[in-house]
Amino acid sequence: MTQVLIIGGSDAGISAALRIREMAPDATVTVMLADDYPNFSICGLPFYLSGEVNDWRNLAHRTKEDILCEGIQLLTQHHATAIDSAQKLVTAIDSKGETIQVPYDRLILGTGATSRHPRIDGIDLPGVYFLRWMGDSFKIHEHLITRNPTSAVVIGGGYIGLEMADALTIKGIKVTLVEHSPRVLKTVHDSFGERVEDELKQHGLNVFTGIGVEQIEQVGDQLRVVGSPNFSTKADLVLVAVGAIPATELAETAGITLGIGRAVEVNQRMETNVPDIYAAGDCVHTWHQLLQKPVYLPLGTTAHKQGRVAGENAVGGQRDYQGTLGTQAVKVFELAVARTGLREAEAKDAGYEPLTAAFETWDHKVYYPGAHPIQIRITGDRNTKLLLGAQIISHYQGAIAKRVDIFASAIFHRMTVDQISDLDLSYTPPLSSPWDPVQMATQAWCKEAARLEQSAVSVV
Amino acid sequence: MTQVLIIGGSDAGISAALRIREMAPDATVTVMLADDYPNFSICGLPFYLSGEVNDWRNLAHRTKEDILCEGIQLLTQHHATAIDSAQKLVTAIDSKGETIQVPYDRLILGTGATSRHPRIDGIDLPGVYFLRWMGDSFKIHEHLITRNPTSAVVIGGGYIGLEMADALTIKGIKVTLVEHSPRVLKTVHDSFGERVEDELKQHGLNVFTGIGVEQIEQVGDQLRVVGSPNFSTKADLVLVAVGAIPATELAETAGITLGIGRAVEVNQRMETNVPDIYAAGDCVHTWHQLLQKPVYLPLGTTAHKQGRVAGENAVGGQRDYQGTLGTQAVKVFELAVARTGLREAEAKDAGYEPLTAAFETWDHKVYYPGAHPIQIRITGDRNTKLLLGAQIISHYQGAIAKRVDIFASAIFHRMTVDQISDLDLSYTPPLSSPWDPVQMATQAWCKEAARLEQSAVSVV
Repeated sequence: MTQVLIIGGSDAGISAALRIREMAPDATVTVMLADDYPNFSICGLPFYLSGEVNDWRNLAHRTKEDILCEGIQLLTQHHATAIDSAQKLVTAIDSKGETIQVPYDRLILGTGATSRHPRIDGIDLPGVYFLRWMGDSFKIHEHLITRNPTSAVVIGGGYIGLEMADALTIKGIKVTLVEHSPRVLKTVHDSFGERVEDELKQHGLNVFTGIGVEQIEQVGDQLRVVGSPNFSTKADLVLVAVGAIPATELAETAGITLGIGRAVEVNQRMETNVPDIYAAGDCVHTWHQLLQKPVYLPLGTTAHKQGRVAGENAVGGQRDYQGTLGTQAVKVFELAVARTGLREAEAKDAGYEPLTAAFETWDHKVYYPGAHPIQIRITGDRNTKLLLGAQIISHYQGAIAKRVDIFASAIFHRMTVDQISDLDLSYTPPLSSPWDPVQMATQAWCKEAARLEQSAVSVV
Repeated sequence: MTQVLIIGGSDAGISAALRIREMAPDATVTVMLADDYPNFSICGLPFYLSGEVNDWRNLAHRTKEDILCEGIQLLTQHHATAIDSAQKLVTAIDSKGETIQVPYDRLILGTGATSRHPRIDGIDLPGVYFLRWMGDSFKIHEHLITRNPTSAVVIGGGYIGLEMADALTIKGIKVTLVEHSPRVLKTVHDSFGERVEDELKQHGLNVFTGIGVEQIEQVGDQLRVVGSPNFSTKADLVLVAVGAIPATELAETAGITLGIGRAVEVNQRMETNVPDIYAAGDCVHTWHQLLQKPVYLPLGTTAHKQGRVAGENAVGGQRDYQGTLGTQAVKVFELAVARTGLREAEAKDAGYEPLTAAFETWDHKVYYPGAHPIQIRITGDRNTKLLLGAQIISHYQGAIAKRVDIFASAIFHRMTVDQISDLDLSYTPPLSSPWDPVQMATQAWCKEAARLEQSAVSVV
């Protein structure tokens, strides 16, 4: 009877455990986790802090009871400290400080990531928070209810920074967002980042871009955040959201090879270099389907997929993780932004000859009430005409996240931009157009590509 | 200089014309149409009649001026009566009754379809309407504004019948819907049809299914609709929406072969059997990608695609229409229903061994406000495990039409049900789940398929 031990009780770990129960009902599965919150939707933390989710317990994908009912054993509040891969033993410390050793036949690491702590003086001051785990959110929540802050600085204009800026604003807190890059949301085109900044400003936020935060200092009851060029502001609370780094100290104790950004190196079967040890989720590097090389891109969707593959293979399955396309979506106030595939610069770096065309239309026939403008950017290769990437921005009810998924499916199958017009997509005037916006946008790209070819011929 | 003549100014005809202008700027393109309304969104007519679209002119995909600016010539109010394919001449009668002859090098037929007139006594009485063309809608509109009807009977529970039932209810008219089949919306599973019936009833409609309407008679100012078993009701207005038949009388004058349901027989290049004559849209039969045979399935999306292919090939292009998957969506009050691929019975008829699994979840993480329940039915082949079809029903803001499109893209690429889990789909809690509902549903299908295989093994 195979004994599988999984370290980490978040997306990757629980997905692996569930898959093992499906594939090998006679295997035993134990999930060991450092805190008391298995299978929580950490992507939902901003919505708990905003009050949109009124009880943190609702963030559980599954309750402890659900997990136990699936036949999965839980070792909560066990901090794994070492792996002995020769003896196949994991050492852990429980909540009482006692050391235990847990044997395994197969081990799956889903240790996740931790918030990146940038080099800023005063980053450890009280009132400065990070947001990654349930514990982080409890600390922020405590601050919100006991100290009633009226102002906050959010450092970082990525997904979590934007969602928290939104969340704190909903709480009635005056938010200043500070981003190091020239635009927020640098995972999409500058023009989309600008739209997001406008959305933030329309909701009363101060937005500062191109600012390197250097120092946080205590000034009475408040914190002063200082950066350059010429940035200084005071607030009651500071949130730092500048990315994640893989939590791989434990993996190192087993002699597991680390790669990009010190993430665990795995193959597409989610195997590490150490026999019988798999890894998945935010602690590993991720195969990129278009780039055909690994990248570090920690996402919940990916963690679920990789965990499932690791679980399947750990009990004798033969499945490859097919890779990421970097598909992502975020809602900021009324706006939603989604992307898949490569941005133009990424495509160029990867050796493609990218062409990007921008297109604007409506999410459904404009004559039907409630139509929202929708902007789409298509990136394709000028030589092969392959679709390389797509980005969409619109009102969050414009179904753009699932429209990006049509592109993601197309890129998965290596479609040319032109072939998107062959897809039989659904239409009814309240929900789309006879050519869905995704097809109008790809047709616009094809016209632009043809025009450029034509003018190149004319020049010759 | 190639002269292309297109007969029909709706979706197929205008799509063909636009594509010709893109591909061969030196070809001349003339669109001849019987009425005065080129390029109108006839799918939008119910929303004009409901008042949601306040001016019928807004239903134009493009105005006449837009079309002329594209370099497309228009012959409106010209009724084509005969094609001489030897002389390459089309005879038409204009609005003054004068006969003209128009020469062509290539001819594209986009003559569309007409409403099916079922055998019902009294179907030609005043107050009984059909809805297919702009002219039909003007007649109904005239009735609505001059006679202020307070009750209506809609015969037919398909897309147009349902949309008109919705539209007339919005106008404050008491609607009785009568359908011949045991359920409305027979293009989807009975359980979904039942949900739609509930939605209608919740909005105050009377719904009668399994009724064959036999007679309509004038009773004072009203019409009595009589059917069996035991059906009789009076109303101020009757709308008959029981399907469409291809308008192919003109094609016959050229000796063009008709096929299924007397639709024009075309190959995937949209060529008829007569040299230099192409046809597209609701007047032709349509290649079904999964069935690998033609069907009669008139849809606006298909008309656009076929018109574009016909246009491209008419000026020397080499493009195949890739086929329909029967992807469709409809909104009925707050509900939306979408489908793609084959229903279980269709799959069985086509020689597959279908298995269907039903799954219910939420359109996005239920902890985030505004989540709508979403029901998904997945049909796959038990032997090959190929995805054959999918149906979704939910609140119309559940992004289900574009979720069905993910399935449509998957079927286009002949994915197995299991492979859907490999797609990198977007996620943010307000818009989806880490496994999108489409993936949760396919995983449920896989579990069910595995369970059945397991129990089959046990029996052996």
